[in-house]
Amino acid sequence: MKKEISRELGKFVSKVGPQDLPRSVFTQSLFGITDGIAVMLAGCRQFGSSIAQILDALGGRPVATVIGLGYQTSAPLAAWSNGILSHLLDYDDLSLSMGGHPTGPVLSAALAAAEEIDADGKSLITAYAAGIEVMTKIGSALFDRLYTSGWHPTSVLGAFGACAAASNIWKLTPDQTATALAMVASAAGGIKKNFGTMTKALHVGNAAYNGVLCAMLARRGWTAQLSALEGPKGLFDLICGKSSLEDHELIHRLGNPWDIEEPGIFLKKYPCCGSIHPALDALFQISELPRPGKIERIHCKIHPDKSHILSEKTPRSGLEAKFNLRYCLASAIIRTAVSLDHFSDAAVSDPEVLSLMERIEIIPDESVGLWGSEITIECKEGRIVTGVCHKLGGIFDKMTLLRKLEDCATSILGQEKTERLKYALQNLADLPSVRDLMEKTVS
Amino acid sequence: MKKEISRELGKFVSKVGPQDLPRSVFTQSLFGITDGIAVMLAGCRQFGSSIAQILDALGGRPVATVIGLGYQTSAPLAAWSNGILSHLLDYDDLSLSMGGHPTGPVLSAALAAAEEIDADGKSLITAYAAGIEVMTKIGSALFDRLYTSGWHPTSVLGAFGACAAASNIWKLTPDQTATALAMVASAAGGIKKNFGTMTKALHVGNAAYNGVLCAMLARRGWTAQLSALEGPKGLFDLICGKSSLEDHELIHRLGNPWDIEEPGIFLKKYPCCGSIHPALDALFQISELPRPGKIERIHCKIHPDKSHILSEKTPRSGLEAKFNLRYCLASAIIRTAVSLDHFSDAAVSDPEVLSLMERIEIIPDESVGLWGSEITIECKEGRIVTGVCHKLGGIFDKMTLLRKLEDCATSILGQEKTERLKYALQNLADLPSVRDLMEKTVS
Repeated sequence: MKKEISRELGKFVSKVGPQDLPRSVFTQSLFGITDGIAVMLAGCRQFGSSIAQILDALGGRPVATVIGLGYQTSAPLAAWSNGILSHLLDYDDLSLSMGGHPTGPVLSAALAAAEEIDADGKSLITAYAAGIEVMTKIGSALFDRLYTSGWHPTSVLGAFGACAAASNIWKLTPDQTATALAMVASAAGGIKKNFGTMTKALHVGNAAYNGVLCAMLARRGWTAQLSALEGPKGLFDLICGKSSLEDHELIHRLGNPWDIEEPGIFLKKYPCCGSIHPALDALFQISELPRPGKIERIHCKIHPDKSHILSEKTPRSGLEAKFNLRYCLASAIIRTAVSLDHFSDAAVSDPEVLSLMERIEIIPDESVGLWGSEITIECKEGRIVTGVCHKLGGIFDKMTLLRKLEDCATSILGQEKTERLKYALQNLADLPSVRDLMEKTVS
Repeated sequence: MKKEISRELGKFVSKVGPQDLPRSVFTQSLFGITDGIAVMLAGCRQFGSSIAQILDALGGRPVATVIGLGYQTSAPLAAWSNGILSHLLDYDDLSLSMGGHPTGPVLSAALAAAEEIDADGKSLITAYAAGIEVMTKIGSALFDRLYTSGWHPTSVLGAFGACAAASNIWKLTPDQTATALAMVASAAGGIKKNFGTMTKALHVGNAAYNGVLCAMLARRGWTAQLSALEGPKGLFDLICGKSSLEDHELIHRLGNPWDIEEPGIFLKKYPCCGSIHPALDALFQISELPRPGKIERIHCKIHPDKSHILSEKTPRSGLEAKFNLRYCLASAIIRTAVSLDHFSDAAVSDPEVLSLMERIEIIPDESVGLWGSEITIECKEGRIVTGVCHKLGGIFDKMTLLRKLEDCATSILGQEKTERLKYALQNLADLPSVRDLMEKTVS
């Protein structure tokens, strides 16, 4: 008889320790954690007061920290808040193997669970890696159908990733971990129809909350059916009509290679939709960008499948502007950069940007490739300049990542505290106390 | 253009006040609330310490009460705990129009939301009625497919019922209520594959939690897509492939008649599976039950669709025994009653019951009808007695209901406090403070 998937995942998650992570996985995980904390701080900068109101009303035993805000609450609720913060700006990472954002739900859960027991930095990194591995491997087994379904992959898969991370750090037994993962199948949800609203980020919070809560319940002996994931009417069947998972192929590939290493996760350079990144990369290929006043017309080729970023409408908010290709290009040319400030409500109504947007024409064209783009700028005096991007380019070097962290953190934490946070993150592998790290995420 | 379903539901929920409830709906609601509190107390009696452990770990701003335990926590978390307690014993009510248990999620949410603002009894009754109406009407629009799907109707629909109840009592505007209902679509879930475990009751808690939480968020300006429920890839499409809902017929039938009145909700007389009720009713039709020692053989006809209660296995726990027809019959004959005590782990291993079970034969037979049963007892001395039940018989009179409340409450609250709770519930329509009621649910 085939073993239940939850049981196999449970065995993997419960036995992963720091010594099992290849060096490259360790490094990639550090990058993912740093990026995750950066985008949570950015989210807090824009939506902090809204989260604070809710946390005031909910309270909770103060064992884990909400990033930026400094609220202390229960582990599930801290994971919920940080999960929402991670995704409110759509500035968080992407996994190409599962069509979603892996770090938000997993890191939120790992931080809360680690802080509750004051684990060390190595344990946090390990729990994060284990959670990302479970989330992305299930995701890649379901990818083809889940991505086109009406369910939100980040949300559905995130519940498993979060649950795996919490189970690992709390050292649940293989059986308890399997039970927690089977239990969280009953709390997995989140529908794409709520995209374009704050509910999209709520999905990530809910996934993190449920992941941590189910780990708590399973640890205390609560029960679930270990066969909940697979087979007819298992969760995978219900959400994407896929019950067999190719003879559990996903199980044999756990940690071999680690998904965070191969194919890897994509860290966003720009605080906007991932599908807009190729066009911005193409733009910044141009060595001497003409001044806006000198521009006659801009042509931008992108792949036709990216049509959701083509809106002709003028963006009414920073959130809408993040998904508007013409806005992002016009803003990038005028401001010669793309940063968080460019998606404030004031910035998106700047008449100079709106005027330049009118001179931008988007041309859907398959020849640039799914993650490619080509920009042509015609200047008034006749000069033509072009820039090309062939593939998605994320943040791959430490300096760029630390600049992103600064951009996200400084207005919340101030310069000095931001430096201390940077230092703690760079030395996370040797940090004796996650509580120490979390103290540095609040002002 | 058709209006979004969430908007139509929002209008209904936000305008329902005590004056809009027909007298019969008022009375039925009082019955439902009394029964709901009874089964929560019963759940607490058996699983209270397990819930208490979790509440210790979670904490929460103390604004709402967990029944039986007396914990004070946030409104969503109190709703969560009471929702779980309501369903742990499968002793809660049934709605035949939507194939699930309506009171658990709705009452849990209504009580928590009402206590937070210290509403009066009338407002509680109104919010409960509005929540049940939304839950059952959506349920009956989806019934044919939802019931056979792999999703747990009580859990999926309960999120909407809970959200409607909280929105009504907190007086959310029509837009806020519509937003809350669209938002909770992203948190609706729960799969039947987890039946037979504590996760089944967790579903009800999660539905109540999410309903209250989404009402809180919408009240504070959080956003969702009002079209989240219907249309291609709306929640209803995803969970049962039904996106049109017969031109929103459900909308036109809101409160006309109220579902709690017609077809009504079924309150359980016996603390076991609803499908076992007809056989027990048939048994108790027999005016003079023979003593167990005198019984040669028992034949019990039930409808073939009820095959899930036919287990040949000896029940290993009280929870399993509740779904075992032969156990319930044997126990009822020996103990001449069916009460909570008969589903303790000690009671289910009583050798006298196990011996009588061996003399019971179950005969699947369509002729008795879906909710009918026929019992024939052959006595050793040759006498044959029979009992017949033609339809599901629940609790319809106040005295029987109050006896159920006593059976559930006394071991938790003691006799005197149980009397006070009974009095408060009988006079709920005139009670100035729900906090007063909740104080009487704890020892």
